[in-house]
Order: sequence, then structure tokens, then C-alpha cells
Amino acid sequence: MTGKVYLVGCGPGTPDLLTIRAVNVLESADVVLHDRLIDDHVLEHTKDEVEEIYVGKKAGESNKQEWINELLVSKAEEGNVVARLKNGNPVIFARGGEELQYLKERGIDVEIVPGLSSATSLAPLIGVPLTKRGVSSSLSILTGVGKGGSDSSWENVGDTGVVLMTVKNLSRVVEKLTESKMSKRTLSVLISSGSTSDERILVSQLDRIPELAEFVGIEPPFNTGGGGSRRGIIGHKRPDFRRF
Amino acid sequence: MTGKVYLVGCGPGTPDLLTIRAVNVLESADVVLHDRLIDDHVLEHTKDEVEEIYVGKKAGESNKQEWINELLVSKAEEGNVVARLKNGNPVIFARGGEELQYLKERGIDVEIVPGLSSATSLAPLIGVPLTKRGVSSSLSILTGVGKGGSDSSWENVGDTGVVLMTVKNLSRVVEKLTESKMSKRTLSVLISSGSTSDERILVSQLDRIPELAEFVGIEPPFNTGGGGSRRGIIGHKRPDFRRF
Repeated sequence: MTGKVYLVGCGPGTPDLLTIRAVNVLESADVVLHDRLIDDHVLEHTKDEVEEIYVGKKAGESNKQEWINELLVSKAEEGNVVARLKNGNPVIFARGGEELQYLKERGIDVEIVPGLSSATSLAPLIGVPLTKRGVSSSLSILTGVGKGGSDSSWENVGDTGVVLMTVKNLSRVVEKLTESKMSKRTLSVLISSGSTSDERILVSQLDRIPELAEFVGIEPPFNTGGGGSRRGIIGHKRPDFRRF
Repeated sequence: MTGKVYLVGCGPGTPDLLTIRAVNVLESADVVLHDRLIDDHVLEHTKDEVEEIYVGKKAGESNKQEWINELLVSKAEEGNVVARLKNGNPVIFARGGEELQYLKERGIDVEIVPGLSSATSLAPLIGVPLTKRGVSSSLSILTGVGKGGSDSSWENVGDTGVVLMTVKNLSRVVEKLTESKMSKRTLSVLISSGSTSDERILVSQLDRIPELAEFVGIEPPFNTGGGGSRRGIIGHKRPDFRRF
């Protein structure tokens, strides 16, 4: 009997932002595939006899995706309940759509368990709303990783813009945002390792973010949020925010 | 001693898409404020002696917001742990930002517990990815409710567009989307009462959605998702989708 694959979103990093459904899937899984971004506490929900497979990719190792796809198929065909863990939401810049398609084309039963994307959870966690009546009425989620994949639609950024995986392209992301309709003076937030004990937050006007990030040594993975703040949307800063 | 207010996102409707953190807050709350969109099963997580207050608003009753704000302040000032429950994510078109600001200005300790927005969870639940490499590299989240609030930035819709709360404005939303760069033939999904037992799904090309929704009698609340599908992003339809 063929098993089933769950593409499970594990949220932004902190283990208590898992959903109950994700916990239920973890508890029932025979095989778990995960990468280095998954917190160890997440894996504590699995049963004792689970088969854990580390499938972490480093940048550039895109050929590993085919191996992961095949692994999901073979483990399911052996009759296992397979949980493929992903940070955030598996269908927002996480290649969940590709894995879904691959599995469906091979007749594997597959289900997505949506998780909290860092794009929609990190700002609220530090007290920053993503939309606000009369201030921001549209939210755009983009990716800063252009190379190797398709580029983001920078001309289409709404009142609030959240850019995931800015990684090494921070200067380019800021350039693209300011080339669109976003003011260089937009109050913006850079979040590294959001929601975890390693979290670091930088608040600045948009065009100063790259130099300040370098100055204070903020490392990837991080997200950039900006926009709308000309009119105050990112104005709810906690007193313990770093200010520059 | 002053208490604390938690603005708690309860996800799209089905109770197992609550986060562990939301459950923990519910279990500790002395007072819970909720509206009609919250599933009864969510309230089962509260303690026996909790004070439950129904604060549901009907369309047009926006003056109730001031009453809710004052209620949050007074219950917190009495020393209570207050959980203000909201569907989805409290800072995506849910006025969480306004409540946050109101409470902060009055010195009340307040924390947002991000939840799964229907904008980012309903599509994955029915097997539709929101972004896909080479197909859609930007996601826009907008609201169909223009009257009374600020209007959405319809000119800024990315590869994938999700419109929340289209309610009675479905024709207008479709018109606005097609006036932007979205093709009339974009394969689109209309989801009513998503993730619950009342869920209804309509799949159609964009410009036919209003008449078909009326024909089959789909009622609000619902979301519209479209975009990218010229190139196939909403191409992973389940066999049991309604087709027209």
C-alpha cells in the first residue's frame, strides 16, 4: 500500500508557532525529511522509531532537489507516512509547489500543511502590523534571491513590502525597491533569525540598511520589511529595538 | 497590577490550524473577546472560569471598534490576561494594527500572536501553491472591501494575487484586477468558508467568476485567488474541484 507525503510548514523558527495539525502529522510520521533551518524542538514531536533524514541544501546545491523528490516518492511507495518539513509556509518561496507537482505526477498522495511564513509572522512578533486602515492596504511578498530562479516583480510592490531571503543581495534588493515607488526614506526593518534566540533586528530608513547591516554584522538568513511607513505603518517599535 | 492583552490569530477557521502559542494563550486567559467567525472548538481551549465576551461586528457597525478598544483597556487594567481572538492573522486586514496602537498609547502591555491568514493558507490546503519558481515570484495580498476604508493598490498586483473579503464587491474586484495587468483568462479560485465543513470552491477564468458565483449561490465570507496561472501556477486542481 502506498503511503502519503505531507509538505509541512513549520513556521518561522520558534517551535511554539507550529500548528496543531503539524504536530499531529509529526506524531504520525514514519519518515521525516528536514534541513538545518528546522529547530531541534520540532523534531521532538516525532515518534521514537521515526526515520529522520537530513536533506539540507547549501546555496548552489540545486541538483539535490531531484534527490529529495525521488526520496519522497520512494519512501511513500514503501507505504510510509512521510513528513517533509519546511520552514515557514511550504508554498511561499520554498519549492513546495515543485515537490507537490512532482509527487502528483507520480500518483503519490500528497497534502500541504500550511505554516506561518516568516513574511507574515516576524513583523507581528515584534509589534509591526502588515496592513493598516488608511495607511497600508496591500501587502507584497517577494524574494531577494534572483540568480538561478526567476526574479521578483519589483515594479509591483504594494504599500507594505516584505522581501524574503535577501541573503547576499541586500544592496540589490534596496536598489530595486527604491527604483520602484518606494521612498529611500521608508522606515524599514531587517530581521535576522527572527523568532529565535539568535534574533537580531535593525530599524533604519531603507537606503541605509545595507551599510548598517554590514556595520553591525547581521548575518543571513534574514528578511527585509518596508513600506507604508512614510505614513507610519512601521511606527510601533519596541523600546528595545536597535536604533541607528 | 495591570494585565496583558494578546491579539491572537486563530487561523482560517479549522481549529487544528491554531498554533501551539495560541492554545497556550487561550489556556491562560482570564477574559476572551471573540466574534462569530471563531470556531466553537477554539473556545474549548479556555479554562472553565474564563469570561467570554462576544464582540462580533456586522458590516457597518464600525463604531463598535471604539467599544472593543475600551473593553480591552479596562479588562487589562483590572489585571486580567485578555485574549482578543481574530480570524487569520490579526495584522493582515483585521484591524489588529489599530488595536495594537490604541493599547500601546494607553500603556497596556500587548503582544501579537500571529496566526495563519486565509490569504496564505487556503490555497495550500486545496493544493494550490502561492509562488512557484519560474512561474510566480511575487505574491500580493489585498482586500476587496474598499468602502469606508482605504482602497487596495490594484495597480500593484504581483504574479499571484489574493483578495480577501471580496464580499459583495466581487464584480468590482474582478474589474480592478483585469484593469491591472491580470488577464481576464487567468485561472482563478474562489473559496468560501475555506478550511471548514462549509467550504465551497469555484474554479474559473477570472472574468467569469462573478456570474458563476451567483449561479451556484456561493456566499461570503470568501477569498479570491488568481494570477500567475496564465503560466499554470493554479494548475494543481484536485479531481473533486467544481469545474465550469
